[in-house]
Amino acid sequence: MRQVGIGIAGFGTVGAGVYKHLSGNRELLCERLGFELTVRRIALRDPNKPRPIQPPAEIVTTRWEDVVNDPNVQIVVELMGGIEEPLKLVMAAIRKGKIVVTGNKALLAEHGKEIFRAAEQHRVPVFYEASVAGGIPIVKSIREAFVASHIRSIHGIINGTSNYILTRMAQAGLSFQEALREAQEAGFAEADPTLDINGWDAAHKAMILASLSYGFWMGACDILVEGIQDVTANDIRFAKQLGYTIKLLAIIKADEKREVEVRVHPTLIPSTHVLANVNGVFNAVAVHGDVVGETLFYGRGAGQDPTASAVISDLAEAAIALESPRAQYGFTPHDLYGSCKPIDEIVSQYYLRLCVIDRPGVLAEVAGVLAEFQIGISSVIQPEAHIDEATALVLMLHDATHKQMCQAVDRLSQLSCVKKTPRLLRVETFS
Amino acid sequence: MRQVGIGIAGFGTVGAGVYKHLSGNRELLCERLGFELTVRRIALRDPNKPRPIQPPAEIVTTRWEDVVNDPNVQIVVELMGGIEEPLKLVMAAIRKGKIVVTGNKALLAEHGKEIFRAAEQHRVPVFYEASVAGGIPIVKSIREAFVASHIRSIHGIINGTSNYILTRMAQAGLSFQEALREAQEAGFAEADPTLDINGWDAAHKAMILASLSYGFWMGACDILVEGIQDVTANDIRFAKQLGYTIKLLAIIKADEKREVEVRVHPTLIPSTHVLANVNGVFNAVAVHGDVVGETLFYGRGAGQDPTASAVISDLAEAAIALESPRAQYGFTPHDLYGSCKPIDEIVSQYYLRLCVIDRPGVLAEVAGVLAEFQIGISSVIQPEAHIDEATALVLMLHDATHKQMCQAVDRLSQLSCVKKTPRLLRVETFS
Repeated sequence: MRQVGIGIAGFGTVGAGVYKHLSGNRELLCERLGFELTVRRIALRDPNKPRPIQPPAEIVTTRWEDVVNDPNVQIVVELMGGIEEPLKLVMAAIRKGKIVVTGNKALLAEHGKEIFRAAEQHRVPVFYEASVAGGIPIVKSIREAFVASHIRSIHGIINGTSNYILTRMAQAGLSFQEALREAQEAGFAEADPTLDINGWDAAHKAMILASLSYGFWMGACDILVEGIQDVTANDIRFAKQLGYTIKLLAIIKADEKREVEVRVHPTLIPSTHVLANVNGVFNAVAVHGDVVGETLFYGRGAGQDPTASAVISDLAEAAIALESPRAQYGFTPHDLYGSCKPIDEIVSQYYLRLCVIDRPGVLAEVAGVLAEFQIGISSVIQPEAHIDEATALVLMLHDATHKQMCQAVDRLSQLSCVKKTPRLLRVETFS
Repeated sequence: MRQVGIGIAGFGTVGAGVYKHLSGNRELLCERLGFELTVRRIALRDPNKPRPIQPPAEIVTTRWEDVVNDPNVQIVVELMGGIEEPLKLVMAAIRKGKIVVTGNKALLAEHGKEIFRAAEQHRVPVFYEASVAGGIPIVKSIREAFVASHIRSIHGIINGTSNYILTRMAQAGLSFQEALREAQEAGFAEADPTLDINGWDAAHKAMILASLSYGFWMGACDILVEGIQDVTANDIRFAKQLGYTIKLLAIIKADEKREVEVRVHPTLIPSTHVLANVNGVFNAVAVHGDVVGETLFYGRGAGQDPTASAVISDLAEAAIALESPRAQYGFTPHDLYGSCKPIDEIVSQYYLRLCVIDRPGVLAEVAGVLAEFQIGISSVIQPEAHIDEATALVLMLHDATHKQMCQAVDRLSQLSCVKKTPRLLRVETFS
């Protein structure tokens, strides 16, 4: 049986999972594929660290260069973490004509353009299923299964940590800090959860999906990113009263002019919508294409096993590509879609929570400011008895641009009846 | 740009959809693929029939042989319907070395073994994404994305017509006949809905998914198939009282001994389960793999556009395979899984509805019979006031084999207190 040599750079949770399952399901993989995926070299930081899965010492190295340069390694798996060293490794592998498999979303979001340009020049495919939504084959589906469709929109819950936190806040009434601590204790949040919490992990994944869908790489400054760190238990409660659930949603859309918008932010979605019921660390991605219609994928978005599943699936394709290079190198640039819509012009509905003095005329003042900026109000609730002199006033607002809303909020916060900073969240009704 | 010649045999709803979208999204497809999919020949039954989409007369023929023999056709799309003629066409195309794309589930379920044997011999891939669940890329996902996983189970709502009927019965309280008529008027059921209603359409799809998952083709007599024609509005109502929703579910499982069971039947599933909330003509397939974990796919399972999306995705792969033949021919036989579990040994929980005389001692008699066959009772309800002397008695039963239950039901129907034939439905708790 043909042997395909694999090199793994990075032996953390996912790297170890790939190694474990390549060996554990070796027989199945051989039967299905007709060749064997054999790990020939592993680069890891500390060979003396005790590990639950211990690779044979003779294939271990501490330098990724040894993986790339090993003549018996035909496919290089990059699972190191970070950006600078992985970029060097990926470019070195491509230059040597070795197929790359990576799960590094930050690397692709920041350097996708140059990586895939090099990949095309050297006719070396780069696979990256594991970079988005773990075990859910969303990259393959958009690239291959939905090839016939213009992608109208993608809505994704693609950060398990923040979904776990929001779920626990909603279900157990925890505060953000309590839920975060629980997530860390349960192993669902890292010691430094910054990128999960501030939305950038989801944003990197959204940039990958958007680029794949629309054929160009966007910059970090083209997209609107807000994290969940300021979502309060009250917001979750008020949203629920109004029939909504708050999720960290990645939204990718193209309009009739083929302008693309990409944004990640805590979002009120109707509690009856299927995405509102994706809980805990699960991920889900809804894709709407002009030909395929509405689709949705659900599964584990992180963790050793689901992510290893995605890497091994890429390895299988990579091994097939070794024998018979495909026309595609993982990303096909084209110019059917022009550019990103300026963030100021992004239109959304909004949830606006104000802390106001509880006296007659306040609503008139607030409504007056909104009217001035041409922003319509769809409903108003005063969700609780007032505390001291101040009370919460929640308004659901019709479509408005980011710019309109920023200006209106700025003006509102100058009103004498408005205490504290107004809280603004976006609403997605999928209409 | 390279042109790839496509021939389409069958120009009904799906065939016309493929033609329409290949042309409508031609620019997008060319950009993404780097080649053009060009329809060079179309076989249809009646060239004079007026059609919403009219192909150019010069490429139309009434004989599928013209499609297969056309030297400019490299990929043959079979969308004729029926089994005998499609089989001849597919075998003829394979013998001529032409790649086949088909959406014909009955053909594959009945002749998959010989088709893929021929495909392997002639090194010609056969693609069939459109045969299961329309726009949902479940074939590709199982074959490629989940290649690393032993498939523990698949649970699918894969017949849109029966799901529409059951949804309408549950939501509007319609009878089966009323819901069927409505489905026909809405265009969701064919004039002859037999295969949708009796479970065999779903069973054909289940056989395809099971074969793909376990590496062998099973026969129609290896699987348990019941349709929805005998589901009553009462059963739906009683199930709801007990916290369940009735769906026509395809269940595919492998146990520790790697014996495979495949069954399609109306099934009580917990109303909180995500599959219970898949309504109308939508399809959903939940796949559980040992590495990937739980996943679920949701989308339109039928209709011109979603099915055309699947066919075009296969065409794209087929065109790539023309240049660089893959190791896989659409189905890889292996013997890691032995055989199907005998139907008699299939274990399930059950819902048993009896029509009994309303007098003391009846429950004792019924329970006695069940005890005799070692079948445990988890709950009993008498869901409504009695009508005449007879009343409904509903029992939820613990795990029992098919054989045990058949024997018990047989004995129960002989009891003098039991009127009418007992009604048995299976329960799936996904535990």
